[in-house]
Amino acid sequence: MVPRYSRPAMTAIWSPVNRYRIWFEIEALACEAMATFGAIPEEAARIIREKGDVAMAAFSEADLARIDEIEAETRHDVIAFLTWLAEKVGPESRFVHLGMTSSDVLDTCFSVQLVQAADLLLADLDAVLAALKAQALRHKMTVTIGRSHGIHAEPTSFGLKMAGHYAEFARNRARLVEARREIAVCAISGAVGTYAHIDPRVEDFVAEKLGLAAEDVSTQVIPRDRHAAFFCALAVIASGIERLATEVRHLQRSEVREAEEFFHPGQKGSSAMPHKRNPVLSENLTGLARLVRSYAVPALENVALWHERDISHSSVERNIGPDATIGLDFALMRLAGMMEKLVVYPERMMANLESLGGVVHSGEVLLALARAGISREDAYRIVQRNAMATWTKLGEPDGRSFRANLAADPEVAGRIDTDVLDEAMDSARHLAAVDRIYAKVFGADAPDA
Amino acid sequence: MVPRYSRPAMTAIWSPVNRYRIWFEIEALACEAMATFGAIPEEAARIIREKGDVAMAAFSEADLARIDEIEAETRHDVIAFLTWLAEKVGPESRFVHLGMTSSDVLDTCFSVQLVQAADLLLADLDAVLAALKAQALRHKMTVTIGRSHGIHAEPTSFGLKMAGHYAEFARNRARLVEARREIAVCAISGAVGTYAHIDPRVEDFVAEKLGLAAEDVSTQVIPRDRHAAFFCALAVIASGIERLATEVRHLQRSEVREAEEFFHPGQKGSSAMPHKRNPVLSENLTGLARLVRSYAVPALENVALWHERDISHSSVERNIGPDATIGLDFALMRLAGMMEKLVVYPERMMANLESLGGVVHSGEVLLALARAGISREDAYRIVQRNAMATWTKLGEPDGRSFRANLAADPEVAGRIDTDVLDEAMDSARHLAAVDRIYAKVFGADAPDA
Amino acid sequence: MVPRYSRPAMTAIWSPVNRYRIWFEIEALACEAMATFGAIPEEAARIIREKGDVAMAAFSEADLARIDEIEAETRHDVIAFLTWLAEKVGPESRFVHLGMTSSDVLDTCFSVQLVQAADLLLADLDAVLAALKAQALRHKMTVTIGRSHGIHAEPTSFGLKMAGHYAEFARNRARLVEARREIAVCAISGAVGTYAHIDPRVEDFVAEKLGLAAEDVSTQVIPRDRHAAFFCALAVIASGIERLATEVRHLQRSEVREAEEFFHPGQKGSSAMPHKRNPVLSENLTGLARLVRSYAVPALENVALWHERDISHSSVERNIGPDATIGLDFALMRLAGMMEKLVVYPERMMANLESLGGVVHSGEVLLALARAGISREDAYRIVQRNAMATWTKLGEPDGRSFRANLAADPEVAGRIDTDVLDEAMDSARHLAAVDRIYAKVFGADAPDA
Amino acid sequence: MVPRYSRPAMTAIWSPVNRYRIWFEIEALACEAMATFGAIPEEAARIIREKGDVAMAAFSEADLARIDEIEAETRHDVIAFLTWLAEKVGPESRFVHLGMTSSDVLDTCFSVQLVQAADLLLADLDAVLAALKAQALRHKMTVTIGRSHGIHAEPTSFGLKMAGHYAEFARNRARLVEARREIAVCAISGAVGTYAHIDPRVEDFVAEKLGLAAEDVSTQVIPRDRHAAFFCALAVIASGIERLATEVRHLQRSEVREAEEFFHPGQKGSSAMPHKRNPVLSENLTGLARLVRSYAVPALENVALWHERDISHSSVERNIGPDATIGLDFALMRLAGMMEKLVVYPERMMANLESLGGVVHSGEVLLALARAGISREDAYRIVQRNAMATWTKLGEPDGRSFRANLAADPEVAGRIDTDVLDEAMDSARHLAAVDRIYAKVFGADAPDA
Repeated sequence: MVPRYSRPAMTAIWSPVNRYRIWFEIEALACEAMATFGAIPEEAARIIREKGDVAMAAFSEADLARIDEIEAETRHDVIAFLTWLAEKVGPESRFVHLGMTSSDVLDTCFSVQLVQAADLLLADLDAVLAALKAQALRHKMTVTIGRSHGIHAEPTSFGLKMAGHYAEFARNRARLVEARREIAVCAISGAVGTYAHIDPRVEDFVAEKLGLAAEDVSTQVIPRDRHAAFFCALAVIASGIERLATEVRHLQRSEVREAEEFFHPGQKGSSAMPHKRNPVLSENLTGLARLVRSYAVPALENVALWHERDISHSSVERNIGPDATIGLDFALMRLAGMMEKLVVYPERMMANLESLGGVVHSGEVLLALARAGISREDAYRIVQRNAMATWTKLGEPDGRSFRANLAADPEVAGRIDTDVLDEAMDSARHLAAVDRIYAKVFGADAPDA
Repeated sequence: MVPRYSRPAMTAIWSPVNRYRIWFEIEALACEAMATFGAIPEEAARIIREKGDVAMAAFSEADLARIDEIEAETRHDVIAFLTWLAEKVGPESRFVHLGMTSSDVLDTCFSVQLVQAADLLLADLDAVLAALKAQALRHKMTVTIGRSHGIHAEPTSFGLKMAGHYAEFARNRARLVEARREIAVCAISGAVGTYAHIDPRVEDFVAEKLGLAAEDVSTQVIPRDRHAAFFCALAVIASGIERLATEVRHLQRSEVREAEEFFHPGQKGSSAMPHKRNPVLSENLTGLARLVRSYAVPALENVALWHERDISHSSVERNIGPDATIGLDFALMRLAGMMEKLVVYPERMMANLESLGGVVHSGEVLLALARAGISREDAYRIVQRNAMATWTKLGEPDGRSFRANLAADPEVAGRIDTDVLDEAMDSARHLAAVDRIYAKVFGADAPDA
Repeated sequence: MVPRYSRPAMTAIWSPVNRYRIWFEIEALACEAMATFGAIPEEAARIIREKGDVAMAAFSEADLARIDEIEAETRHDVIAFLTWLAEKVGPESRFVHLGMTSSDVLDTCFSVQLVQAADLLLADLDAVLAALKAQALRHKMTVTIGRSHGIHAEPTSFGLKMAGHYAEFARNRARLVEARREIAVCAISGAVGTYAHIDPRVEDFVAEKLGLAAEDVSTQVIPRDRHAAFFCALAVIASGIERLATEVRHLQRSEVREAEEFFHPGQKGSSAMPHKRNPVLSENLTGLARLVRSYAVPALENVALWHERDISHSSVERNIGPDATIGLDFALMRLAGMMEKLVVYPERMMANLESLGGVVHSGEVLLALARAGISREDAYRIVQRNAMATWTKLGEPDGRSFRANLAADPEVAGRIDTDVLDEAMDSARHLAAVDRIYAKVFGADAPDA
Repeated sequence: MVPRYSRPAMTAIWSPVNRYRIWFEIEALACEAMATFGAIPEEAARIIREKGDVAMAAFSEADLARIDEIEAETRHDVIAFLTWLAEKVGPESRFVHLGMTSSDVLDTCFSVQLVQAADLLLADLDAVLAALKAQALRHKMTVTIGRSHGIHAEPTSFGLKMAGHYAEFARNRARLVEARREIAVCAISGAVGTYAHIDPRVEDFVAEKLGLAAEDVSTQVIPRDRHAAFFCALAVIASGIERLATEVRHLQRSEVREAEEFFHPGQKGSSAMPHKRNPVLSENLTGLARLVRSYAVPALENVALWHERDISHSSVERNIGPDATIGLDFALMRLAGMMEKLVVYPERMMANLESLGGVVHSGEVLLALARAGISREDAYRIVQRNAMATWTKLGEPDGRSFRANLAADPEVAGRIDTDVLDEAMDSARHLAAVDRIYAKVFGADAPDA
């Protein structure tokens, strides 16, 4: 992920130094585990821990360079690290990595990194949820037109829109919690997962210390279905971002103008057109969503490794591990800020709602006619006729409101009273269930409007 | 999905008649709900139920044709169905669909179909799990070589391979249970989800009767993140099929021949080469996995509908709903049968294991040298040298086994005893943890080998 | 592809009978080729052709059933067909398929089917191009607002929008011609492509008769990079459909209303809301585009077959072959019809253009100020200030047009004349280059506006 | 793309300094164009060019920091650059970017970068082609077994395998040439592509100088179908890499050992198993192919921008522009080196070919029996019976070769002579067409074997 879309906390998770710190932690814990049942001397484990901790605390560019230098020769990253560690730890280093294979370190480290990333993303989601909830509560009873197919349908409230996105992000949060659980797995089981040269208690010990579960069956590697499920969860979340971003883009378009991204003082919307205030954040989020979603494809292809493992997944994960989590972290926090500061125009919402002459109440009129004993087919025909008559003369001198057209329609006039018509034109009924929905979504937290 | 890869039970779920039966059930239940609190006459609900049940039970090609005829005129599938239903039910039909919108029926129906499909898929997964477990138990102690990068690594058991796939399919089963829960949702909330013309109790009633949960916030439609998560779960399962299929394809290749798909009497492997017995089932599964996986992409793109809904998701779902579930159903049952009948050749496994002169035990020799006080670097160098000497003269007259080479190496000879070498060449240690792993995977069920 | 989105001509290409006709044609041509150089008796080739032609002309359901019956036993589709053919042709059938392998027939047949499909799709594209050109010519000088980021930018013409889509579909046509060329390939080269049992002249003969090129190197199969490129071309075309569909959806939304899909008499937009006229065609096209695009993913995964071939591609192609071409054929013809009948509202376009008080001319004012010697930074500041003043009071009693605000701004008033301001507010300049662009796109065909 | 998979020449194309150099070049050329027809003073264009060239030549980290600083305030990258440029150029800078919009610069720059990237990739492909051709010529007559379904089929030559991949990469090269042409496009047409404030001759001038074509219809942006086609071409190439990498992985697996990636002295295959020599390069290429392929998905989603443009494509392209080209460049050069140094084992190929007792010649025996007047069905049955008898007793004491089994079969013995059997067992016929195929693939270049 390019720096422009990267935040430091997430980027740090994928830094070499974080990776080496996790590698050391795994190796040190494995030594401590082995020492507990006498596989290696306790003193050795103690020295490895102490000297290693010092080395990791003082880890510098020079250490990075040294490890790279060794890797250039050995062409093996874990061996390079272990050789460097041996230089720091001294003779006791011969007890490090005993009976383990590189993947024990690499895969468990990747799990730790994904768990760290998931924790950041959960915090991001909480920020999004908070921003959505605030808007939902603020605009609980702000009437706006609901649209299907981009066409005015019936009134709803802007708060309800926000509540819907809140509910989706709450589901996304639950999905991420589950995806985090899927990936929070440790494997220290040797070359083909048989524990041939290492006691399974080492795996249990390290797993517990790292807050992970021990893998049921690892085959040198942790099976990649876990990772595929993880990246799919991120893809679903990204799609939720796109849905909300698309909503904002629509609301901000010139003919709608019901809401706007906060426009920063000094910001220039266009180098050529000074009047422009563009929804660039939500457009940017749309693109980021495409990216994060796309990373699920190679993650799924990674599952079918050959036999006990091949290393084709590695180049994929070295990229999509950071790309997907950094991209999603940036997108979520951008979304949270954007929704927090979103400028909402209730008057414009009301103006738009009324701009079609009241045809948006056709559904209620249909029901009123039905209640008056007119058949569904006839009622539909009557209402559609009057709606179209209203629609086609919108804004024209001889245009009439939907209510006026209905009142003048002989098939209507004799059948329903004018106060029934008035009532049908009232948006209030459309907000009647808002309290009930809010109680489902926000629980006891939701204050009255 | 083409008929070749379709099974009747799953295909039936996506048939027009099943769809119309579910539509009627939703409409009838909604009427019954409304009758309970007096929104419509109880008698009307009773008549709708009775006459509708009769009509649905007698549903024929003629009914299909009639509905198609009406749709050709109205260009609206739900209205076409309701018109047909009115013809069957009579005047009480005016109480059907009152205050509802088409999506209330369509989306809830789609949920029911996906739940039905998920139930079939869960049964399929159980068949796969049973076949894998049987092979795992049968070959618990069948020694075979574990391979990383396609290269012999260390011994393992064939049962352990099967146990690993079993564990993955158990995870896949859990994912599908969760995906089923995600999608088991009912929405009867009207044009933009505000319950403006319908009592929310109708939704609760219908949901409960259909074994669904009522959606928290629907916006005419059930939010498509649920469906995206569902199809992603299918994609992960498909990838697990590909992993197992790839394993079988590798085991059957001419140079390996450790296992074979059952070859049907009378089957012809090739029109031109009568000697061929090809792993065509597992290759077919590989292709089906690609298909099922691909359907996740448009499902994810479906999430970002415009405002309260647009109908772009519909054409996608009319295809991937059947395609993904029918394809996966077929693939899982093919996989179950294939694994149940898989022909396994333990002697060939042993022959392959031994074919590299014993170098597969290099890891244990490395540890033995380390235990004898040789540094990791020196031990690695010694072992690699002898492994390469063995490898490069495999099958040649002056070739020697890895053990013989080691025994003749002065750097080894003086340091470790021959019985340590013998022990290092023994595959037994690699099966030592099998019991422990089986207990984790299969629990108390797992009999001793 | 479900029947709802299928047209008969394309569906027929993928019918069993068309497949068997092509299979027979390949076999018969191969026999004729072999007869020309004496590999089989001329009389045999003649009899095969004659009796086969009769059998194929009379091909019925009974023949289909007979082939299926044989396949159920042999589990091999080509052998089943050849056995059926032998029943029809008699003893000379022993000269059929001599030295050939199934893939020679299957792959060459698939090429023929894709070529047939491409020819239909090219005709579809021509229909789309014709519809776009007609709209482009009709609305060459119909002023409308151009929008970037969904925000009014500067005027353009509706015809120019259409010309842009025309140019994209012209590129798409060229891509399909190229993709057709890629796939128009014949392979009759035997089990692993060595012509071990068949003379290469047979391949040349059959290829020429079928209008195909002989593959350079086939390895039992025609390499799947050709097919991947083909399905990628369809994916790009589908994306172009989505771009145009998205434009229409935007133009039809209630607040814009600049264009509308033709609304069929008797059509019902919504079962609950009789006033609705929804852009359901373009929404449907958006979903179909997602589908067709998604088929490129498994087509790309099909490329990496194992060694000289595996059959994993087959299940993919049995589905995406028909799905992608039928879906795209339907989508293109729906698009052509939709664009042909699109209802365009020039007055509404003008009203929208003017609805922002003239700020859409800010770019030209910026340049006028620059020409008057004001620095870019100052000019930008001045124009943005006046644009925002106009924007924020749109429709309010104390609101003023952009031109009025500028005229009242002391930093502007002294610097540029009012006729310069008037000229800056004129949309004419934005159409000045239309002729030039049309000449590039439509060539000499483009009549004057 | 992570540094591990990046080569400097390609990375440099995507560096900020290269981008700014291209931006300046576009702006300077536009000024020169305007000067030619008097839109700005010639002297101004000269000064802009001279001072700008000096500034770009001396471009340093300090300049980068200054531009970033301005962008942090203006939140607009092109304005930031222009402001910096103004600081360097002085008062004449007011003539820079006159009548242009940011996308004129950004999109044309992206085209230039993609063209530069394509030129590197074409050179990479030439290196791959050279390596493949060298192996093809070296092993033109190296007999090896051809495999379908991973099962021995019939003999072929290793050179022919290489020639097949050569032909695919030659097609890939042609696809990239075409993709480069698609993307080699310049747009300088203003805010919505109408040339309202800029003379179209500027676009023509800049395009010609940059070796680009002027876009037919741009709408502020160059239409994204061009970019989608470009990234699809890269995806097809990546899939070709995977096919070849998969071949090598298969050939190197322990049971096959027909070829091996060059194993670097000092390289360690495994930290735990010193005997391992793994095909890590080809596995790595498999993963890189998955990545490059995945980037086509968001590129296709980028096509459907809203109206005249939205900026959602930008975040996608900022990532996949570098990711796809850097990743593919690295992969192609890794592939070229790998194929150049590939270690091939002809003896092992022959040993594998013979390891199935001669059943790989079953196809030729089938034809011999047919020529002897036996019906296809009988011949198939006879040959399959003897092939299976051979296969099932491979390596067993009472096992016999396919030829021996056939000779002992009474249905064979009386029908065909032993010299016919001998001839059928000869691999020579399988190489008979190699010269012909080489002539098609390599033309007059191909020396005799």
